[in-house]
Amino acid sequence: MAKYSIGVDYGTLSGRALIVNIETGEELASSVFDYPHAVMDEALPSGKKLGQDWALQHPQDYLDVLYNTIPAILKESGVNPTDVIGIGMDFTACTLLPCKNDGTPLAFLPEYKDEPHAYVKLWKHHAAQKHANMLNDIATERGEKWLKNYGGKISSEWAIPKIWQVLDECEEIYNEADRFIEAVDWVAWMLTGKESRNACCAGYKEMWNKTTGYPSKDFFKALDPRLENVVEEKLGLEITPCGECVGTLTPEMAQKLGLTTDVAVAAGIIDAHVFVPAVGITSSGKMLAIMGTSTCHMLLGTEEKQVPGMCGVVADGILPGFYGYEAGQACVGDHFAWFIDNCLPASYYEDAKEQGMNIHKYLRSKAEKYRPGESGLLALDWWNGNRSCLVDVDLTGMMLGMTLLTKPEEIYRALIEATAFGTRMIIETFRENGVAIDEFYAAGGIAKKDPMTMQIYADVIKMPIRIAGSDQGGALGSAIFGAVAGNGYENVYQAAEVMGKVLDTVYEPIAENAEIYDKLYAEYKILHDYFGRGENDVMKRLKALKD
Amino acid sequence: MAKYSIGVDYGTLSGRALIVNIETGEELASSVFDYPHAVMDEALPSGKKLGQDWALQHPQDYLDVLYNTIPAILKESGVNPTDVIGIGMDFTACTLLPCKNDGTPLAFLPEYKDEPHAYVKLWKHHAAQKHANMLNDIATERGEKWLKNYGGKISSEWAIPKIWQVLDECEEIYNEADRFIEAVDWVAWMLTGKESRNACCAGYKEMWNKTTGYPSKDFFKALDPRLENVVEEKLGLEITPCGECVGTLTPEMAQKLGLTTDVAVAAGIIDAHVFVPAVGITSSGKMLAIMGTSTCHMLLGTEEKQVPGMCGVVADGILPGFYGYEAGQACVGDHFAWFIDNCLPASYYEDAKEQGMNIHKYLRSKAEKYRPGESGLLALDWWNGNRSCLVDVDLTGMMLGMTLLTKPEEIYRALIEATAFGTRMIIETFRENGVAIDEFYAAGGIAKKDPMTMQIYADVIKMPIRIAGSDQGGALGSAIFGAVAGNGYENVYQAAEVMGKVLDTVYEPIAENAEIYDKLYAEYKILHDYFGRGENDVMKRLKALKD
Repeated sequence: MAKYSIGVDYGTLSGRALIVNIETGEELASSVFDYPHAVMDEALPSGKKLGQDWALQHPQDYLDVLYNTIPAILKESGVNPTDVIGIGMDFTACTLLPCKNDGTPLAFLPEYKDEPHAYVKLWKHHAAQKHANMLNDIATERGEKWLKNYGGKISSEWAIPKIWQVLDECEEIYNEADRFIEAVDWVAWMLTGKESRNACCAGYKEMWNKTTGYPSKDFFKALDPRLENVVEEKLGLEITPCGECVGTLTPEMAQKLGLTTDVAVAAGIIDAHVFVPAVGITSSGKMLAIMGTSTCHMLLGTEEKQVPGMCGVVADGILPGFYGYEAGQACVGDHFAWFIDNCLPASYYEDAKEQGMNIHKYLRSKAEKYRPGESGLLALDWWNGNRSCLVDVDLTGMMLGMTLLTKPEEIYRALIEATAFGTRMIIETFRENGVAIDEFYAAGGIAKKDPMTMQIYADVIKMPIRIAGSDQGGALGSAIFGAVAGNGYENVYQAAEVMGKVLDTVYEPIAENAEIYDKLYAEYKILHDYFGRGENDVMKRLKALKD
Repeated sequence: MAKYSIGVDYGTLSGRALIVNIETGEELASSVFDYPHAVMDEALPSGKKLGQDWALQHPQDYLDVLYNTIPAILKESGVNPTDVIGIGMDFTACTLLPCKNDGTPLAFLPEYKDEPHAYVKLWKHHAAQKHANMLNDIATERGEKWLKNYGGKISSEWAIPKIWQVLDECEEIYNEADRFIEAVDWVAWMLTGKESRNACCAGYKEMWNKTTGYPSKDFFKALDPRLENVVEEKLGLEITPCGECVGTLTPEMAQKLGLTTDVAVAAGIIDAHVFVPAVGITSSGKMLAIMGTSTCHMLLGTEEKQVPGMCGVVADGILPGFYGYEAGQACVGDHFAWFIDNCLPASYYEDAKEQGMNIHKYLRSKAEKYRPGESGLLALDWWNGNRSCLVDVDLTGMMLGMTLLTKPEEIYRALIEATAFGTRMIIETFRENGVAIDEFYAAGGIAKKDPMTMQIYADVIKMPIRIAGSDQGGALGSAIFGAVAGNGYENVYQAAEVMGKVLDTVYEPIAENAEIYDKLYAEYKILHDYFGRGENDVMKRLKALKD
């Protein structure tokens, strides 16, 4: 009898479920559910206004994803519910919520419906920047060793700054919260009735280390005396490796989803990291880039190296037995979308419409006619700050080389090239610090739909690029973990070898282009360091002036 | 009996005549005539294709301006032709044509109708860049002293590169031409039957100096042995100060225009320079900016100082008795037009249309809501190179500070601010080199129509800005010179005091804004020097790669 696994991929605006045959990797059915509350960045449902840089979500939306999508895929696929052995989940992170001991989110309590701090702080909630800055200063001053595992800086997107912000701005919520928990762990809790914390989120977002644990009480006390026992009081000490079984479905949940109580639920994983098994990567030296609005880079290594400006290195953080390295670019597809929303002239829209072309495709049809270097433009891809290498949210975009003859498609192409240079900068930084990168894989919308961009990337990084084979790589990766949790495979390597997929298409670097891009990259690097490493801090001064 | 003067203002695409009461300055009637051949930059009328960067005109168009506009304004104003005492003219420059000894343009000769070099080379004919580069190299090598009066570099737009190009590419035309003459002097010749050369064009565009004359024969020989005697053979040595009477109308011309043969014709002047008397400037230290697609700055000084990167200093070049200084910005209105044509999203067009607003006005209505520094953006205004201070056509545009929240109106405003910083850079360079600037005047379309831009300029340069009072400042200035030539005034100072005009509106700097702009200007200056003075020649390297 064929067995099946379900993967649930929680994105920023919606959740998607996929049902997969674990022996063939065949994807039988999928279903998407948009979060009714989407991202709350201006006001709460009650109308209460939010501050600048806030981004909240409503936990009910996550449950509604399950209730809507799982019955739908069961129905569509015709799979017998008794043949479903496991569920895996991946989620944006750090997406964190305060809840009670029984898992009830504070956001569900009527008394807190007007209190922003009671809601889920989405990964891109950036209002804890002040706390991240203070944390980094204190950790640096104290010479905290774990800091180097995060490239020397932790992000305002991560758990401790977010928790500290709650404490600082609304102590009542801090006190009322028995737990601050990653949304993916909270969903697993709701599914199984068992609280757990996955190693991936704990390692990348909560500063947990397999060998040394969390930072010390002394450190937390130095941040704020009230934080001294934050780990025991609010986080919990037991960490579950990714993909390990957390428990089985509660009877109530099994009934709601139309599944049996035998279904195993795997410990969750971050939405980007889950792509690694989904493209069949099971060994070191193969970098995977998930290219969407932003890009996340994942890499397995055999040693723990400290790479400046990386997002993190976590033992067992991606696949058990390896050091999982993560890096990122804060703005990739967002760059191109910004350009199209804010800079594209009316005539192009009309022309695209007349030709019945999607505007991205229309622009690409113009931009792909240019040879490398032909536009004379060069940009720094920092419209949303710099996530890796410099780890600096206060950096901003730069472009030069414009003339009165510069065309929109040239600017568009320069933005794409800038993100490719940013990727090369990350690759070179890894290599310079002793972490090998021998192969390059790409997943996400851009990898699938944008051959021009992928060719530019191949030419810039001078490596062939392989493309994820599933359109639902996140959900497929989660289904792989679900299959392992449900004992469909002995381990994730075996499961990934069978269920992971890449396309036949490989983007090979074109030597002639690579040669020109080498020159442009050299210019990019000079400007990257000039504006990014303190020689001219004009971007920060302008930002300070702006505020 | 009231007396009247006619000013004729020759622009790039049309000529305009204006009739003015010389005792009151009242402007009675004006008339515009579009050049039938406009700018020929792709082909001759015969269909013969032109090379890249060519820009030609047809001399017949200049005569047709007179034949059409002067009778029209006489008719409309009802002025008795016997009460018209003088005609003054201003023209784009260096706009140069080859002609025979009797003034017949080679372009009128049937045998040359297919020869591009027989036509008028318009100011913006840039195909002599190679010759300008060679000229600058040779002049620098030889330590030619006059070079410093032009900021150390002469432009490809000026006379000698243009003449040299003719010699180099079509020696027959060079040999057939008895004269190469500025179009404004050629029109005066046609009006009066007398050949003359005005000091303004000669000084700013032909490298003539009141004290030392033209560059030496040795210098011209060093360029090309055939150029050794170019001055005597092709230019002529007698120079007429601006506004001085060249002669009176020939009977034939008087009849065609409906005027008497008593009408005095004033020596011409460059179209920008003529604005100085038109706004009533009659003394030193008052800078005037003519703000259109590009900006031209004029200033009277009492000493001859050599200011690095200025366009030129010419004794008597603007008004007799003063050193006339000129500087310029290569791209001002063009910047904003580029932005609107290439970067403005469809939604803005639609919204402007719905509100029945001109798109510039619509954008301004959004941009003016921002406070200085609020956008976080900073740009270098080099989309068309840098004309003054750096004098470098190979520099290109730069902008930084962009984020995903950056709006089109913020970019638009940053471009405006960049041109204001460019103006301040010019002002400071003058001052640093001992040339006083105590007052600031603005003329041209932007000065009249764009209060936001003028306020930004006042805040950036920290001086009040007075605005030209006439909508036809060029023609009014010419009429002032016509009035002097016709003995309506003893000198141009008296005439300008009466006939020159500024508006009552004065843009006063706002201290609070000026304080922020001081900070932004400091950043502009750092980047100006970093990219413009050789520290990082990335713009030039990208341009080289592009070519």
